[in-house]
Amino acid sequence: MPASPIRKLVPFSDAAKERGVHVYHLNIGQPDIETPPFAMAAVRDFNDKVIKYSHSAGNLSYRKRLCQYYHEIGIEVTPDDIIVTQGASEALLFVFETIMDPDDEVIIPEPFYANYNGFAQTAGVKVKPIFSSIENGFALPPIADFEKVITPHTKAIMICNPNNPTGYLYSKEELEVLKQLALKYDLYLIADEVYREFCYDGSKHTSLMHLSGIEDNVIMIDSVSKRYSACGIRVGRLVTKNKEVITTAMKFAQARLSPPSLGQVAAEAVLDTPKSYFGEVVDEYQGRRDTVVEGLKQIEGAYCPIPKGAFYIVAHLPIDNSETFCKWMLTDFSYEGKTVMMAPACGFYSTPNLGTQEVRISYCLCKEDLKDAMRILKEALKVYPGRKI
Amino acid sequence: MPASPIRKLVPFSDAAKERGVHVYHLNIGQPDIETPPFAMAAVRDFNDKVIKYSHSAGNLSYRKRLCQYYHEIGIEVTPDDIIVTQGASEALLFVFETIMDPDDEVIIPEPFYANYNGFAQTAGVKVKPIFSSIENGFALPPIADFEKVITPHTKAIMICNPNNPTGYLYSKEELEVLKQLALKYDLYLIADEVYREFCYDGSKHTSLMHLSGIEDNVIMIDSVSKRYSACGIRVGRLVTKNKEVITTAMKFAQARLSPPSLGQVAAEAVLDTPKSYFGEVVDEYQGRRDTVVEGLKQIEGAYCPIPKGAFYIVAHLPIDNSETFCKWMLTDFSYEGKTVMMAPACGFYSTPNLGTQEVRISYCLCKEDLKDAMRILKEALKVYPGRKI
Repeated sequence: MPASPIRKLVPFSDAAKERGVHVYHLNIGQPDIETPPFAMAAVRDFNDKVIKYSHSAGNLSYRKRLCQYYHEIGIEVTPDDIIVTQGASEALLFVFETIMDPDDEVIIPEPFYANYNGFAQTAGVKVKPIFSSIENGFALPPIADFEKVITPHTKAIMICNPNNPTGYLYSKEELEVLKQLALKYDLYLIADEVYREFCYDGSKHTSLMHLSGIEDNVIMIDSVSKRYSACGIRVGRLVTKNKEVITTAMKFAQARLSPPSLGQVAAEAVLDTPKSYFGEVVDEYQGRRDTVVEGLKQIEGAYCPIPKGAFYIVAHLPIDNSETFCKWMLTDFSYEGKTVMMAPACGFYSTPNLGTQEVRISYCLCKEDLKDAMRILKEALKVYPGRKI
Repeated sequence: MPASPIRKLVPFSDAAKERGVHVYHLNIGQPDIETPPFAMAAVRDFNDKVIKYSHSAGNLSYRKRLCQYYHEIGIEVTPDDIIVTQGASEALLFVFETIMDPDDEVIIPEPFYANYNGFAQTAGVKVKPIFSSIENGFALPPIADFEKVITPHTKAIMICNPNNPTGYLYSKEELEVLKQLALKYDLYLIADEVYREFCYDGSKHTSLMHLSGIEDNVIMIDSVSKRYSACGIRVGRLVTKNKEVITTAMKFAQARLSPPSLGQVAAEAVLDTPKSYFGEVVDEYQGRRDTVVEGLKQIEGAYCPIPKGAFYIVAHLPIDNSETFCKWMLTDFSYEGKTVMMAPACGFYSTPNLGTQEVRISYCLCKEDLKDAMRILKEALKVYPGRKI
């Protein structure tokens, strides 16, 4: 498994710190928002004498409480439709292993979350990318592009909605298009919906599980990490009405015994977080998005779509190569003792030579820091030797 | 992935409970011993505002503290030699994925922990079993048996020491034999040592990492689960001096982002448990082992080795088929309103038709219950229709 261009930068970030330069980390999706206090309060109250394995599918009480959460957003599932996992990462791995045999294929619009490649490689399956362009704001590519790459080995189409890395929010109409495709070719539809609550400008999230007439084909990946700023508890899940998928995925779940018990206590309790929390958090993220978009507008040769969800932006920059540029920012550049770390977008494309003029900016810092980071990025682009409009 | 014969019994256990029969669970390795209070105390003191991802290799403070623990048992490692994982399960998966390509082979003496098969299947590699017999107390099979199955695809030999399911404790001499084999054929040696502290009759555990002159070939799997009765925190690790293995395994670790943060807090704190804890726990388990061995001696046609470690015994019973028998115990039998659930040992052999007269008995219940369970087992074998000496 090759190291991603994003990971490759980490030593250079350390080097920047060693030469006394402050690094604004716009490269990672670790939210800075406080974890709702319900999470740790419940963990503190946990007083079982033995910290035991939970059920391999997760505690029943937690799965029941999840059904209520889903009911409130118009998704009707039972505890038997849910397997609690070690983060969304494990859920994805289980899904790939469950629905595909070695050399089977899953179609994913690119750019996509780089670790999907790792899980595909672990499961021995292939990712077939479909190009979605920054010029179209990373909207769903045309059906014809999907049909071009569908083969007898194609088992699934996967989307991340809202999207990491683009922040794109797929519309209900786009999901209906995917539904027709899935029905026509009898494919699974996998939706990574871990950013569901982060939708901006009053837009509303549609889940693949809201679609009717395709229930057996839909598998949803979900997680507590981003939603409640609780990445470290490692609690995700896979959700599907397809009994065969659940039965097979359970065998993988049983092999690793159980998801984390303490994390599940936190995850169950955090569902009591009042809706007002998301109101505030969404306002905060939307303001941050606006700060980054505004900052990019001030940079000659830079542009980006205005994403409606998640906390990422993919921006085009006037540069020769995003990997070289992001590294240079850490090894060679500083302005007022500061620099910015971003993720080269080429790491999110699986087709070679795409995304070379794009970076992913994660807005998990406060507005003031983001504003300053954009100012520093502007200064950097004035002097970057590989500048290229 | 087929369901194991052990898992297949679970619905019948539920059925037994539904017909009002009390089930003694001698089928599972979930210790009933209390988790040392240090674990939860540290978690209660955890007051970070955000429950963040940890380092993908685990918190540095935890890895440093682990080095001290290993130093105390004569193993010298640095934090860079350790990757903290989601239980030993994930560590095993990482190791298989790291050191083998699809269709490569790992040799494991059977009977062995059934989930090794699941991890091998996930990694696309093959387990080559070597028969170890109950008559020899499950000692290491002769070298010739290993050499018979070594092929150009063989990449590793793996042992669990002390062993699950047999409780067998490999001697230093046996490990030296493995070392010579590994050197001769340039193989990795993988040791699952999660039961290290549970050694009886004054015997002492030798780690594969105690051997000299083979450092680059040895990979140790370890875990907090059994040692501290904390299965639910899901914190294990892989340890090796081989830098290439660490570098590759780190890529898998990075793909799943981080091990559980709260679990690591508990795991680090629990290392402060005084040595006297193990003195008491080992005494307790040894007493339980003796109770089971004594109980088995009272049963005509039953026998077992006296295992020196872990908390399992594989016993020969006068039965036609262990799967049928274990199921019958749950569906058809009760004595004074009670029955016993055991794991059919055929589930621990990968060669078909082995272990059909053997069961694994886990002694994670108090002596009184174990004594009663053995009495009930004796009664069951008097009336079991498939009795066969």
